[in-house]
Amino acid sequence: MRLSADDARQRFAGGRSAHLAMADDQGRPHLVVVTFAAVGSVVVTAVDSKPKTTTRLHRLRLIAANPKVSLLVDHYDDADWTRLWWVRAEGEARVLDEPAESADGGAAAQARAWLTAKYPQYAADPPTGPVIRVEIARWRGWAYAG
Amino acid sequence: MRLSADDARQRFAGGRSAHLAMADDQGRPHLVVVTFAAVGSVVVTAVDSKPKTTTRLHRLRLIAANPKVSLLVDHYDDADWTRLWWVRAEGEARVLDEPAESADGGAAAQARAWLTAKYPQYAADPPTGPVIRVEIARWRGWAYAG
Repeated sequence: MRLSADDARQRFAGGRSAHLAMADDQGRPHLVVVTFAAVGSVVVTAVDSKPKTTTRLHRLRLIAANPKVSLLVDHYDDADWTRLWWVRAEGEARVLDEPAESADGGAAAQARAWLTAKYPQYAADPPTGPVIRVEIARWRGWAYAG
Repeated sequence: MRLSADDARQRFAGGRSAHLAMADDQGRPHLVVVTFAAVGSVVVTAVDSKPKTTTRLHRLRLIAANPKVSLLVDHYDDADWTRLWWVRAEGEARVLDEPAESADGGAAAQARAWLTAKYPQYAADPPTGPVIRVEIARWRGWAYAG
């Protein structure tokens, strides 16, 4: 049921989308779904060129004001609840908005490279927007059948 | 791209699992995945008998302290990003902990009936724990291809 930190990290990294929760200064939670890459204790996501809504910029403002975030990757299986699992990663986020062109080996360029390596979808149209980089302090995971 | 409130509500209600975000008094977001039912402007979820972790009770304490929540239902399709969509529902949550036996037609009994009607999985083992009932104030939705 409770997953080991290693198992949790591994399942998380293999997920194709994650949910990212933030909180504003009124204690209102804010929730978005993201593509991401997880390497070691770092999770990154980036503003890409999928059609935008204003929330893409909203999340950057929220993180600038309050870096505490929670990310969740889960597996839902409607046909078999014994296959359910989830992993939650909690940490502090930072927005990196170096332009994509500054190929300086910096953290944003590295994050974009991780994302492009993970998602073939980005090959033709790599993410060029600001990067959210989360340093994970705690991994927690659960599986119906452990 | 932006969905109408009606379209958003309809897609949300059809989802099989949702993500529920809360925030504690330190501005730390907390994120869980839940089964749910959505009827009109109300979304309900309940503590069921799937193997428990302490977070199941943690969420009840968080909501008692801060009722502001955000729920998200999304569709991810790794093979075709043009099929992506998400709907977010924001509102105020309340914990109803009437025991399952009080068949008084109250809000908790109603919520458990909605959940059992939606999920065949609950037929043999209906949720009997506390119910979280969210009154939704705002629906927001997005689809890659609107």
